[in-house]
Amino acid sequence: MSAFPAIQSPQDIKGYSVEELESLAASCRAEILQAVSKNGGHLASNLGTVELTLALAKTFNFGPEGDRLIFDVGHQCYTWKLLTGRLDGFDKLRQQDGLAGFPKMTESAFDYYNAGHSSDAISIALGYQRADRLQGRTRQNIALVGDGGLTGGVSYEALNDAGQKQDPIKIILNDNQMSIDHNVGGLTRHLEKLRMSQSYRDLKQKVSGRLSPHGFLRKGLNKLKRAFRMRLHQNSAFFEALGFRYYGPVDGHDLEALLRSLKALQDSPHPTVLHVMTQKGRGYPFAEQDPASYHGVGSFALEEGLKKSDRPQNSFSACLSRKLVDLGAKDNRVCAITAAMAQGTGLADFAKAFPDRYFDVAIAEQHAASLAAGLALGGMRPFAAIYSTFSQRAVDQILHDICLQNLGVTLLLDRSGLVGNDGETHQGLYDTAIFQAFPHLQLFAPADSQDLDLILDYALSQDGPVMVRYPKTQAKPDLDLAPQDRHLFQARQVAEGPDYTLLVFGSLAGSALAASQQVSQEAGLQADVFSLVCGKGADLASVKASLAKTRKLLIVEEAHGAYGFAGQAVLSLSSPQEPFSYKIISVQDPLRGQASRDQLLQAEGLDVSGLARQIQAFLQS
Amino acid sequence: MSAFPAIQSPQDIKGYSVEELESLAASCRAEILQAVSKNGGHLASNLGTVELTLALAKTFNFGPEGDRLIFDVGHQCYTWKLLTGRLDGFDKLRQQDGLAGFPKMTESAFDYYNAGHSSDAISIALGYQRADRLQGRTRQNIALVGDGGLTGGVSYEALNDAGQKQDPIKIILNDNQMSIDHNVGGLTRHLEKLRMSQSYRDLKQKVSGRLSPHGFLRKGLNKLKRAFRMRLHQNSAFFEALGFRYYGPVDGHDLEALLRSLKALQDSPHPTVLHVMTQKGRGYPFAEQDPASYHGVGSFALEEGLKKSDRPQNSFSACLSRKLVDLGAKDNRVCAITAAMAQGTGLADFAKAFPDRYFDVAIAEQHAASLAAGLALGGMRPFAAIYSTFSQRAVDQILHDICLQNLGVTLLLDRSGLVGNDGETHQGLYDTAIFQAFPHLQLFAPADSQDLDLILDYALSQDGPVMVRYPKTQAKPDLDLAPQDRHLFQARQVAEGPDYTLLVFGSLAGSALAASQQVSQEAGLQADVFSLVCGKGADLASVKASLAKTRKLLIVEEAHGAYGFAGQAVLSLSSPQEPFSYKIISVQDPLRGQASRDQLLQAEGLDVSGLARQIQAFLQS
Repeated sequence: MSAFPAIQSPQDIKGYSVEELESLAASCRAEILQAVSKNGGHLASNLGTVELTLALAKTFNFGPEGDRLIFDVGHQCYTWKLLTGRLDGFDKLRQQDGLAGFPKMTESAFDYYNAGHSSDAISIALGYQRADRLQGRTRQNIALVGDGGLTGGVSYEALNDAGQKQDPIKIILNDNQMSIDHNVGGLTRHLEKLRMSQSYRDLKQKVSGRLSPHGFLRKGLNKLKRAFRMRLHQNSAFFEALGFRYYGPVDGHDLEALLRSLKALQDSPHPTVLHVMTQKGRGYPFAEQDPASYHGVGSFALEEGLKKSDRPQNSFSACLSRKLVDLGAKDNRVCAITAAMAQGTGLADFAKAFPDRYFDVAIAEQHAASLAAGLALGGMRPFAAIYSTFSQRAVDQILHDICLQNLGVTLLLDRSGLVGNDGETHQGLYDTAIFQAFPHLQLFAPADSQDLDLILDYALSQDGPVMVRYPKTQAKPDLDLAPQDRHLFQARQVAEGPDYTLLVFGSLAGSALAASQQVSQEAGLQADVFSLVCGKGADLASVKASLAKTRKLLIVEEAHGAYGFAGQAVLSLSSPQEPFSYKIISVQDPLRGQASRDQLLQAEGLDVSGLARQIQAFLQS
Repeated sequence: MSAFPAIQSPQDIKGYSVEELESLAASCRAEILQAVSKNGGHLASNLGTVELTLALAKTFNFGPEGDRLIFDVGHQCYTWKLLTGRLDGFDKLRQQDGLAGFPKMTESAFDYYNAGHSSDAISIALGYQRADRLQGRTRQNIALVGDGGLTGGVSYEALNDAGQKQDPIKIILNDNQMSIDHNVGGLTRHLEKLRMSQSYRDLKQKVSGRLSPHGFLRKGLNKLKRAFRMRLHQNSAFFEALGFRYYGPVDGHDLEALLRSLKALQDSPHPTVLHVMTQKGRGYPFAEQDPASYHGVGSFALEEGLKKSDRPQNSFSACLSRKLVDLGAKDNRVCAITAAMAQGTGLADFAKAFPDRYFDVAIAEQHAASLAAGLALGGMRPFAAIYSTFSQRAVDQILHDICLQNLGVTLLLDRSGLVGNDGETHQGLYDTAIFQAFPHLQLFAPADSQDLDLILDYALSQDGPVMVRYPKTQAKPDLDLAPQDRHLFQARQVAEGPDYTLLVFGSLAGSALAASQQVSQEAGLQADVFSLVCGKGADLASVKASLAKTRKLLIVEEAHGAYGFAGQAVLSLSSPQEPFSYKIISVQDPLRGQASRDQLLQAEGLDVSGLARQIQAFLQS
């Protein structure tokens, strides 16, 4: 990869010819493929935006004091990293102490926002724009938003605001006809219509890129072009209704066309959208053919592509997938909802088995929760699977629409706890703190896949809301607990000992048990170990009895500080007559950056030896 | 009011003539004016939807087994209550043990959703619709959404989903050109264009109501009407882009036109929007002239209208209003953001003083928070004022966009704690539990207006995020604390005594101090009383010293259970060497329904005598 030119800033390529840009695009793709096949990462979206990023760099004047490019989500920033002096370290992309997989202001003065979640880039660009105006600066603020990101409600809220006040922000609609899985939504149909319109296909070559900032088209355009303009005008009505000018669509892999269109965008004094069509996975045949599977990947062999074995088999998501299909077969009220994460959450199998009862609502977590409420009101039993970090988008809908109404909705929070290489923005550490106060909501954190099965059976039996959190990890090894001992509301004792009491919420039970065995071997101290899957309304009598004996309590939870189940458990157990000392072993501030889940567990002292170390430190204090 | 006809169900008016409906409309207005002037409530929006509700009742087949009407927000359901057997009790609207001010399923089988928050009705209707389809039922599901509600992102997410799948839900766009304050947003401009288009005004009388479900207009329409259709078609492109049919606009006070349009809506087999124009405050001249002030009101004299003295003068909101204008004058980085609540949050004065630095983003709390992040990134110091209950809409934006990026945004959570007559859906009881775990965020709860001033000064001095919660109440009487004793991070001792330790978070400090004096008089037991305004990182050394002496801790907080600051304080203070017994006095499950704030404080034992009673019960246990 030594062929990659020495580029420290987007300014360095402003003099590049189209041919030089094309050559650079090939180099970028090679670097991206190399790094992602080694470290995992977001592949298909980054391969799709190489030319677009280069054309942007050539057109605008980006820099710490110049124009700003705000990536929505940040799934598409790798080329930008290569243009902003981060070639060194690119082979450590998404690795501990390496480069983040998303834009990060601490990494580069060319990153203007720590993106990670979807659909907020328009708001951020608008905030920058208004700050510039108030402070008398003239800089261009450009939000690069996917057609998937545009389905999130906050995008629309921001379009509506900017359109009304006519703030001249620029939006690049990166339309790859996907979000993460195949895109859905009425707006998608609209874009589809736009892309496929006969006039567009007929006229693309003739007018592509000849858009002008003045009145939309240059003088002297012939009748044909005017007809095309009319068609575009009609099709672009969505954006125009919200107060934006609309240019496009333009082929996002045609550098000449891109450069012409971006120039027009640059010169527009209005809030303006440029619609760019890109191909996910562009340039890597495996990814072109199956872009959804190549959206976010682990490491794989570049020549062979992803193999089935590269995907986790016994993850909680996989267990959920099997169980939900079982429940769907037994009870035709069961339906499943995802917000563009069918594969990630394991709902794809349910979708195949029961297409009528499966709803992918696009990147729209708020609507996912409210739709679930409506389905429950109508007599269905919806299971909505959302990553923990994205459930933060639907807090009000979960509280107001589901919990206050006491509806039979099951919320499945995948990727709960430490997530890993996606970094701080994706950690699922806040769910228990946020949701445990909500009325009527029962919260569970399974220790293993058998627990998850039982909890899902229980959830289906309930008329009120249930939430289940589980991490992105193997659900194995299972606890050595017989089915009849797998209580959902009582602490299950999995080891006995006189010296201290160890209570574990959720899936760290196996590690904590192993840690207690290590402590026993190393220090001769033995614990009563309890596994608990229920975070509210648990029966802690056996733990209390143990504490009367040991007067020492350790609680392990994969959550943030003492704000989750652990803190509330200490409060429940506290007794002035039989005081005990305690320590909550959880994730501590400050949040760590990207690293593998195992590395993070180790860094936080939540792996077996870290737990053993923390236990001993407490016992010796 | 005995003239109101005996109506138990919408079915009862299906045989009414237009004249009878007009007469009934007058009776409804009289009942609404009577009840709201006595009890307070949502006036202007309810006066605006009388004819529309009657026309809906006559057209559709509503009932427990029939069609469903889903009110968005529920600000406009009073006429519906009068049509569904709730005339008795209407004089106790919004009162303790009376009728709720919002639709409530426990009140009537004709209420299909417990509305309270905005913009989710389309999702709920869609959920019902899909449940009907899956269960083989044929019922109409109609969402009644204001133009204000349509600015909330979840509305758009739901439109996008329904339009894509072509679920035949029906949406009535109740366009009163207001949300709560004057409406804003690009979509508003679009609707404005539609309403004001020359052809519309010219042709309104000619074609109003002659819409047909088949091809939009009846056969044989003349050229003029076809031209009108074209204009509408162009203007209605926003909804059509999302996959909806669009009918309208129709005059929402013209019963004949309404009945014809609703028939067309009823017969449409597609997802369809009917655009209805209504006038807020219709029929009550004071409200017609100043609908914003008459949106939500307290009691007032019907003949005289609202007086200035009917509005609270020394509320925390009023203090905030004054202080923010001061800060804005001193520091031109200060800007203010509201989500359609300029009057409620007290930002109206700032808006007048600094219009350039004031941003009303419409009902769009997510965008409000993200926009604040963008402004802070651009070097401004945004203060975003949002009701506590609506801050739940922006949890992810507050975490991801503001706190993880450690930006200098101040979030002002008005109406925190017990809110009162709006009922369960509006309680501000969850904020501390939700937000206290967030990295970098400093949280404060002022005891009085002087504290609020100091906290705002402090917030402006910070480069990171600050959140301040305060209730809808008088900030008086202020604590007897000199400015130099008003520490923000230390517990401030306001009374001394040997018998127990009383720690109060936030604005119940005055009540708790009075309660401790009552306990002293009644039981001769005296407390060390501490007021604390900081919920995280507080210095509790003096409280700890007191506890070493008293071994009895009472914590008072206007939040839910032990999930807020109080629980974390107990954890920080706990000591196995010097164990203490404790009680957290807060709001307990189950949530109570509507009542005044004072009644709720009394019912929860959080008024002076209730606190004294709870303190004594604990000390005697």
